[in-house]
Amino acid sequence: MAGNGASYPEAVDRLIARLSELPGIGRRSAERLAFHLLTAEPEVPDALSVALTDLRRTVAHCSVCMHLTDRGKDPCAICSDNRRDRSTVLVVEQPRDLIALEQTGMYAGLYHVLMGRLSPLDGIGPGDLTIARLLDRIDAPDSNGGGGVVAISEVVLGLNPTLEGDGTALYLAEQLASRDVKITRLARGLPSGSELEFANKAALADALHGRQTMG
Amino acid sequence: MAGNGASYPEAVDRLIARLSELPGIGRRSAERLAFHLLTAEPEVPDALSVALTDLRRTVAHCSVCMHLTDRGKDPCAICSDNRRDRSTVLVVEQPRDLIALEQTGMYAGLYHVLMGRLSPLDGIGPGDLTIARLLDRIDAPDSNGGGGVVAISEVVLGLNPTLEGDGTALYLAEQLASRDVKITRLARGLPSGSELEFANKAALADALHGRQTMG
Repeated sequence: MAGNGASYPEAVDRLIARLSELPGIGRRSAERLAFHLLTAEPEVPDALSVALTDLRRTVAHCSVCMHLTDRGKDPCAICSDNRRDRSTVLVVEQPRDLIALEQTGMYAGLYHVLMGRLSPLDGIGPGDLTIARLLDRIDAPDSNGGGGVVAISEVVLGLNPTLEGDGTALYLAEQLASRDVKITRLARGLPSGSELEFANKAALADALHGRQTMG
Repeated sequence: MAGNGASYPEAVDRLIARLSELPGIGRRSAERLAFHLLTAEPEVPDALSVALTDLRRTVAHCSVCMHLTDRGKDPCAICSDNRRDRSTVLVVEQPRDLIALEQTGMYAGLYHVLMGRLSPLDGIGPGDLTIARLLDRIDAPDSNGGGGVVAISEVVLGLNPTLEGDGTALYLAEQLASRDVKITRLARGLPSGSELEFANKAALADALHGRQTMG
């Protein structure tokens, strides 16, 4: 009994399928989005389509730090900025981590984006991250972007405070141990603005362990 | 202190902006989606871009029932199917309602998609829906698609059981009152497979009011 009307036109089905493949978007959300795009002003799907094409056409990774940059601007704005402290490199997992740190305005050194973290369960090993490039930057300071050649003397590990982030930090520390660089990691403790009674045990333990003298 | 690195490349920002405009997608989800699209195989954003362009290029509304159809197939598959009961029209708010009903395989008549519901608070009045076209279909059976000319004798109101859906049904019933058609609406009661203790008062009231004799 179910006729051809029981399905959407093919183009709608295809869009729903593409949208459902995105992380966090289930079948129902994809349908809702597709209908929004169908009934919106024609400019809405068109602008989104163009934005998607532009993404690949104009965005590239910096060959030094692996952060996102406009194609044609390599090294990126940070790596080619000689006013920054070129002796310090902060290692993060993802470009968005870099952006979050940069937005604090509290860090003036360079970055290195690993493009992920070690995750044996997901089959992500050292070769899948940009670790070799990081070691290169330390071993060959002339491959480090910018005008002058300044050797890296400190590597700040800015991985996520998770099991996998910690594992990756440990691996990096091992790799870096034989090199003449200071290795540090971002501080742990209670997040500013939070309430102590709601902090988890690990955060409280970190806060106790890393307690600082005052006054 | 915050340098150029504190922002994404322009193309990434544009994509995040476009994605954030979609219903149910906030700034954080849009960022996550954009990064997924950046790091996925190139085919992923490309396929989505093409799906969006195809949407407008190949999808149209049926000129009889307003359901979605492939451009070039007008009237749609349902409206041009002469094996269906052409004397009954089921009125729904959206194409997805039609699809849900059609998938039950329990309805063999025609449909009419209002493309919304009356919503005075959102400024949606009768002129914004396809009500005039519905009245046309009743008054002029030859504008009803299909081969033979069969007059519509029953209009089933299949609007959502909500305040606005009920308001719209009431308005339609008034418009149809002067015409020689039977007006019905979809039954209300307890949803099959649900548990009585979790039903809301309105559903329980409907179930009591519409109780059916057995055996």
